[in-house]
Amino acid sequence: MSPDPSSDGYFRHQLAEVETTSIGARTRVWAFAHVLPGAVIGADCNICDHVFVESDVIVGDRVTVKCGVQLWNGIRLHDDVFVGPNATFTNDAFPRSQDHSEALLETIVETGASIGANATILPGVRIGRSAMVGAGTVVVDDVPANAVVVGNPGRITGYVGTGDAPRIGGQTTTPPSDDPMGRRGVRVITAPVYHDLRGMLTVTETDSLPFVPARFFTVYGVPSKEVRGEHAHRVCDQLLTCIHGSVRVLWDDGVHRGEVELNDPSRSLLLPAKVWGSQYQFVDGAVVHVAASHPYDADDYIRTYDEFLAECGPDTSA
Amino acid sequence: MSPDPSSDGYFRHQLAEVETTSIGARTRVWAFAHVLPGAVIGADCNICDHVFVESDVIVGDRVTVKCGVQLWNGIRLHDDVFVGPNATFTNDAFPRSQDHSEALLETIVETGASIGANATILPGVRIGRSAMVGAGTVVVDDVPANAVVVGNPGRITGYVGTGDAPRIGGQTTTPPSDDPMGRRGVRVITAPVYHDLRGMLTVTETDSLPFVPARFFTVYGVPSKEVRGEHAHRVCDQLLTCIHGSVRVLWDDGVHRGEVELNDPSRSLLLPAKVWGSQYQFVDGAVVHVAASHPYDADDYIRTYDEFLAECGPDTSA
Amino acid sequence: MSPDPSSDGYFRHQLAEVETTSIGARTRVWAFAHVLPGAVIGADCNICDHVFVESDVIVGDRVTVKCGVQLWNGIRLHDDVFVGPNATFTNDAFPRSQDHSEALLETIVETGASIGANATILPGVRIGRSAMVGAGTVVVDDVPANAVVVGNPGRITGYVGTGDAPRIGGQTTTPPSDDPMGRRGVRVITAPVYHDLRGMLTVTETDSLPFVPARFFTVYGVPSKEVRGEHAHRVCDQLLTCIHGSVRVLWDDGVHRGEVELNDPSRSLLLPAKVWGSQYQFVDGAVVHVAASHPYDADDYIRTYDEFLAECGPDTSA
Amino acid sequence: MSPDPSSDGYFRHQLAEVETTSIGARTRVWAFAHVLPGAVIGADCNICDHVFVESDVIVGDRVTVKCGVQLWNGIRLHDDVFVGPNATFTNDAFPRSQDHSEALLETIVETGASIGANATILPGVRIGRSAMVGAGTVVVDDVPANAVVVGNPGRITGYVGTGDAPRIGGQTTTPPSDDPMGRRGVRVITAPVYHDLRGMLTVTETDSLPFVPARFFTVYGVPSKEVRGEHAHRVCDQLLTCIHGSVRVLWDDGVHRGEVELNDPSRSLLLPAKVWGSQYQFVDGAVVHVAASHPYDADDYIRTYDEFLAECGPDTSA
Amino acid sequence: MSPDPSSDGYFRHQLAEVETTSIGARTRVWAFAHVLPGAVIGADCNICDHVFVESDVIVGDRVTVKCGVQLWNGIRLHDDVFVGPNATFTNDAFPRSQDHSEALLETIVETGASIGANATILPGVRIGRSAMVGAGTVVVDDVPANAVVVGNPGRITGYVGTGDAPRIGGQTTTPPSDDPMGRRGVRVITAPVYHDLRGMLTVTETDSLPFVPARFFTVYGVPSKEVRGEHAHRVCDQLLTCIHGSVRVLWDDGVHRGEVELNDPSRSLLLPAKVWGSQYQFVDGAVVHVAASHPYDADDYIRTYDEFLAECGPDTSA
Amino acid sequence: MSPDPSSDGYFRHQLAEVETTSIGARTRVWAFAHVLPGAVIGADCNICDHVFVESDVIVGDRVTVKCGVQLWNGIRLHDDVFVGPNATFTNDAFPRSQDHSEALLETIVETGASIGANATILPGVRIGRSAMVGAGTVVVDDVPANAVVVGNPGRITGYVGTGDAPRIGGQTTTPPSDDPMGRRGVRVITAPVYHDLRGMLTVTETDSLPFVPARFFTVYGVPSKEVRGEHAHRVCDQLLTCIHGSVRVLWDDGVHRGEVELNDPSRSLLLPAKVWGSQYQFVDGAVVHVAASHPYDADDYIRTYDEFLAECGPDTSA
Repeated sequence: MSPDPSSDGYFRHQLAEVETTSIGARTRVWAFAHVLPGAVIGADCNICDHVFVESDVIVGDRVTVKCGVQLWNGIRLHDDVFVGPNATFTNDAFPRSQDHSEALLETIVETGASIGANATILPGVRIGRSAMVGAGTVVVDDVPANAVVVGNPGRITGYVGTGDAPRIGGQTTTPPSDDPMGRRGVRVITAPVYHDLRGMLTVTETDSLPFVPARFFTVYGVPSKEVRGEHAHRVCDQLLTCIHGSVRVLWDDGVHRGEVELNDPSRSLLLPAKVWGSQYQFVDGAVVHVAASHPYDADDYIRTYDEFLAECGPDTSA
Repeated sequence: MSPDPSSDGYFRHQLAEVETTSIGARTRVWAFAHVLPGAVIGADCNICDHVFVESDVIVGDRVTVKCGVQLWNGIRLHDDVFVGPNATFTNDAFPRSQDHSEALLETIVETGASIGANATILPGVRIGRSAMVGAGTVVVDDVPANAVVVGNPGRITGYVGTGDAPRIGGQTTTPPSDDPMGRRGVRVITAPVYHDLRGMLTVTETDSLPFVPARFFTVYGVPSKEVRGEHAHRVCDQLLTCIHGSVRVLWDDGVHRGEVELNDPSRSLLLPAKVWGSQYQFVDGAVVHVAASHPYDADDYIRTYDEFLAECGPDTSA
Repeated sequence: MSPDPSSDGYFRHQLAEVETTSIGARTRVWAFAHVLPGAVIGADCNICDHVFVESDVIVGDRVTVKCGVQLWNGIRLHDDVFVGPNATFTNDAFPRSQDHSEALLETIVETGASIGANATILPGVRIGRSAMVGAGTVVVDDVPANAVVVGNPGRITGYVGTGDAPRIGGQTTTPPSDDPMGRRGVRVITAPVYHDLRGMLTVTETDSLPFVPARFFTVYGVPSKEVRGEHAHRVCDQLLTCIHGSVRVLWDDGVHRGEVELNDPSRSLLLPAKVWGSQYQFVDGAVVHVAASHPYDADDYIRTYDEFLAECGPDTSA
Repeated sequence: MSPDPSSDGYFRHQLAEVETTSIGARTRVWAFAHVLPGAVIGADCNICDHVFVESDVIVGDRVTVKCGVQLWNGIRLHDDVFVGPNATFTNDAFPRSQDHSEALLETIVETGASIGANATILPGVRIGRSAMVGAGTVVVDDVPANAVVVGNPGRITGYVGTGDAPRIGGQTTTPPSDDPMGRRGVRVITAPVYHDLRGMLTVTETDSLPFVPARFFTVYGVPSKEVRGEHAHRVCDQLLTCIHGSVRVLWDDGVHRGEVELNDPSRSLLLPAKVWGSQYQFVDGAVVHVAASHPYDADDYIRTYDEFLAECGPDTSA
Repeated sequence: MSPDPSSDGYFRHQLAEVETTSIGARTRVWAFAHVLPGAVIGADCNICDHVFVESDVIVGDRVTVKCGVQLWNGIRLHDDVFVGPNATFTNDAFPRSQDHSEALLETIVETGASIGANATILPGVRIGRSAMVGAGTVVVDDVPANAVVVGNPGRITGYVGTGDAPRIGGQTTTPPSDDPMGRRGVRVITAPVYHDLRGMLTVTETDSLPFVPARFFTVYGVPSKEVRGEHAHRVCDQLLTCIHGSVRVLWDDGVHRGEVELNDPSRSLLLPAKVWGSQYQFVDGAVVHVAASHPYDADDYIRTYDEFLAECGPDTSA
Repeated sequence: MSPDPSSDGYFRHQLAEVETTSIGARTRVWAFAHVLPGAVIGADCNICDHVFVESDVIVGDRVTVKCGVQLWNGIRLHDDVFVGPNATFTNDAFPRSQDHSEALLETIVETGASIGANATILPGVRIGRSAMVGAGTVVVDDVPANAVVVGNPGRITGYVGTGDAPRIGGQTTTPPSDDPMGRRGVRVITAPVYHDLRGMLTVTETDSLPFVPARFFTVYGVPSKEVRGEHAHRVCDQLLTCIHGSVRVLWDDGVHRGEVELNDPSRSLLLPAKVWGSQYQFVDGAVVHVAASHPYDADDYIRTYDEFLAECGPDTSA
């Protein structure tokens, strides 16, 4: 049976039960799906067999909801979201039968994100723009924009769109060049290393840096599951050095995106202003030392990726 | 569509297929659900969309079965159970297509327990009273009463209702008081520690104890996933000391419940008679030493939590 | 309602939606199931409630598909396959809503394999003959014939039908005899060990071996998740010794099958020609030394289990 | 040249320089030795070539001082002491040239002790009765009676006269019997062990013990170099159990002496009253649990080995 | 026999053999000592029994050489040196009988240093001013000024005269104050630490520092036996932070001296110009980050302690 | 005073005490030395100040005994031995004053060996030809020919004369060539390595080897202090591979000598017949696999280095 628009401007399979009136044009609702009154579904969506949609649900445009999925009260799917088959949402952190005393939690899946087959999404999380939740993953924390999460519990294993990123470290045989990356001048800066029997020494003269450090900070004691950074600065440049252990750093200038693994005190990553960054996979007791070009200024932080894209994204001048 | 009682005293959505006649009053069966002949469902239940119920199934009162769940032959849900969406039961430990030679295993979910969204329950397990199975969890062993289990495979991470329990150990900055807890006098007993360069020594004079020990035992070599104890005594008092590593101890006097982490040879937990206890999260090669007030007597053990509640629960005198 | 053959030679529940015409005799399709046009389903199958089958799907004979399962384009289920409830297939490695630019991947489940309840199968994998995927498992790699995989991600924990296999090593109290196993003379060969304060020495005289070694190889640096071997030889005999760490070896002579854990340099496993073998659970930096009776010859390898059964299986002379 | 008594009753080699007048009968002083005025040397001693003896030195009877040794002010050698060649004493903990402001420390070597060749003895230590300091050892702490110390810094490796002592543990192939040892009933007591997949449990009923415990103590956090215990009790019996790691226990009933290595929670050592004990080589985080028959009583302790021999030694009734 | 000056202005015991003519006033040479022609010995020295001095030896004033010591060709003892009994010098790194082909190595013991009893000094080392070599130590490397070395091989365990120095870290119960130490303003600077579940962050604003950093360097991969630093700067101030592991830092302003153990990224040590520093006991993979007030300038380094004392010592203005 | 031959053909300092009549020509005995009757000393020796020699002592030609050394009954010094100052021999394993009940042990120092300053030699050891005992070392075991031993207790750290030997392994940057070494064709043989994500595989075809293996043995569980091998074969060739951990192998063809560190399963060392070999510094659980060209034959072993030199040394044809 091919999907033909019904008289309402969207397609409804004859075995579907649709009780809402808010469904966008060209959206298709398939057999044995059930949409309760009040639900809002955008245009060009695909609501597959055996899907169930409660009333307080908002679905954007061009969203795909595969078979066996339920969208409970409080679920918000922005445009272009993909929800794989049997992926399971929740809205109650501590469910007890017949007990509705706890406030239901809202779950937000941002534009372009995908949720893999049979994944489980705990209540109250936000899944960032274009993030990718792997099949079978149990998501227990917020997922940053563009992050790839897998496992039970779900952990970040990478970021989408960074396939060409250099990896610095012993596992790779080709050392990365120090060429600038992207449109803002993200680059690896290599300091000389003096090595003798007494150990190693790496030196950086301040005036060889692209900025004069006004502030230093050291990050340590980070559980390996944590993600730090996750913001951009408006005017502050940063130089990150992993002084012990290793860490992976995502950089994203709004147009290009890459990952660098830092694991050598002599190699630092320059993150200029207007570059979104985040650090993850802190391993082996990673300690990250950061030199910053400006003193602390709360107003210099761009704290959400959406805000970052608005200020520094593809449509803005570099 | 609001749930109105049908003529049978329960509500049946017009798109539901109900073949049994044993459904209690005020229970609601929703669209695309299918209940086979012979199934027994109590009163005030909620059987959601796309649920499937086989014939040899017994469901108590006030049970919620969310969308996408199947209840197979041998599943028993006691009163007030919650089953989250897409949670999946099984009844065959080694399924082969068309091979019905193995006996189907019975799965029992006791009163008040909750099974999180998309959890998987292996065949033959018993999920104890008021236990909480986390979303996405794969349950491979019995779950004790009140336990919280998460992960794949599922492991106990705590017990419900023990939020105010003291934790003893280095991670906490406020040492617990030794005040009695609950109505039976559960308490932490601190022995003096003599510490010098040659190490530490902690001493307990027998006559400072609330009982004269008649028996000692030492528990060791316990895999971290195991739970030990899980019983109450009728007359025997116990004093537990974790002499190496750490362990968490649940105590439950039938009215109050708490957890204590033991990780210091100088701090012991007194578990008087008529207190249910269990020990879990044996880590770092935990060794637990127990002094008991009476010799071994098999008749002194209360081995199930239901029996414990009957003898020592809220309705009994302390 | 009992399954009666419909006029088409198969049974279709009245609430099922079946659009294909290719369904074999005696197959049953149950309530709220939906089969699209073009799907091919064999005889004597059981397609349970709430199943969804796309068009480019081929299902063999005697296959069971439990409730809540979807079979997407590209799924191939051979004869006698079991798919547990809510088990979830996929066919897109990097799903994005409305983006069909990536080629869909084919998933093959070979004859007699079982997929446990609520398992997740990533796209493009092949699940081997008679393999057993545990409930709740997330399958990310191919599964060898007869293997048992569990966990997230799924790892091999054993092989079906090897329950009587000896385990060599400290964890078992009964040492294995060195009696031949199966019909091809698989056996453990024990070399003498000379042990003094300076360490241990184990010696093998070549002429005590059943063959003259023409080649040696050493396998090392194997991640614990990997499976190696997985082939049979037509004429080459092999002697495997685990010189450091431990490894489990599956042997299968086409009729009998067993597992041996090798973890002692003085105990080797003789794998004669025409025995299928595979090595897995490389732990503690396992190093496996192999002596082979013949030089390397690519034509001597039987690389798939189907080919092996054809050449060396139960219907062939030993 | 044979040693003939000189006119003073002792032998003096013609190339020796002897300035004291206090040398006992039959003592021999050899070539190039130099004894300052005031030194006191007993009878039957042997003072070898190149020895130097200062004035404030007291040497007992039957002492041997081999070549190249100096005895500084403050050195006290009791009867039957052996000092090996080039063994070096000291009496200033922080020597500076021409600076005599610090009080010189006294060093005591008790009856029957031996100091190996080229050993170094730091100032102020006491070397116990019949102890044995290995060749080349640097002694930085007191040495208990009968102990054997070796290395730099010196550590106890055993006790003289205990060669037949049983060792309990995996390294020995012959398990010890539980027969009483010596004349006071020192013995190993084995408790039953219950072992299943959940770990191990060992149980002791109090009334199976030879005494009713009045006190418990636990020793832990002991650096591996430390020695603990080192006393006897007049009336108190003790039962020692090593609950984690391992420890070696010396027992000495005044006539017999032995060592037991404790490393298993199910095997305890009974140390009755009037038995000298000491514990050493605490390894792998050893934790020792002790049950004692009496409450703490400072008067019950015999704290020096000399006092012990006087009260409980060979000349006393058992 | 009391030491009376001989006619040569020094005392010579009648049993001493002295062949040199260069011995200073009031020096005493005792019995069985042997000094070869050409040796130069200063005034007020004490050359004890059984000492042997070769010809190419220079000994300063007020030096003590205890019994059994040999001073070989090439040994240089500066003023006020103490050499304990049986301490043994060498001058041939690879001795073979009758083979004099290798150049003899010079050993220098600087002013005020002490060499403990029975120590062994390998050829060619320099033992710094006021250093203290423990009894029984085998010295295989140069010993810094004021260092205390013990063991075989000898390792630095501390510095003399630093007994009141604060130790920063978990082993001490009283946190150090940040008060300036000494006369140059050495002090500990504590940065704020922000601690949450995601780890720790410590921040330093550059303008809170006593200088603007012109250079950074990181020291890592240092074997625990190594000593680094060991110099002073003429104008450059430094701020040392141990970012991983721990390290001990000696500071010495020419008048006062102290030690600080650094083991916390939030606590740094300010070493102003004209303060001698050295770092030792790098443990647990210590990584030390240093901010310096000036770019690298070879002329700013004071590389020997003698030169340091001359420029910055007690007789100089602060 | 220059050494002039005395009338006995050797030089005796006027302050020396010599009671033996067996001293070879040109030997010099210096001041305060004392040689007892019966001692045998060869020609061209140097017996320095403060040396003491007992009666049952045999010293070869061209031996140097530095100051402060004693040679006890049972000491045997072969030709060309060097004994450093204050080096200390022993001859009683368990010395007690006045107790001569134990047999004295013989100590043998073979031709050309050197004993460093202040070393201690335990009784009964044999120090091999040309071995080198480091200063301050405590020798507790036999020392192989040419070995260098240091520390307390003494451990082998290398072999003299092997300075140009290749080291195989990660610490060196220049990989060794596989060129033959010495005159018997000792060489490193490199097997190809196949490396993929599943681990590494290294293969050796038997017919690529210089011999057909008749025997294999595996050495494991060796304490790091042990030395194994230490023999040559008359006709048997061997191929050594270190399959786990690392080991150092000494080879010595009677004329040349070298060391190879083996630590990679793909690199083996060919030790042809008539090459003396020994293996030491087994680290990280080293496992060594050996293929041998002949079956075991006790008569093929050359077990002492002297015997080896006689059969295969420089004066024999290759």
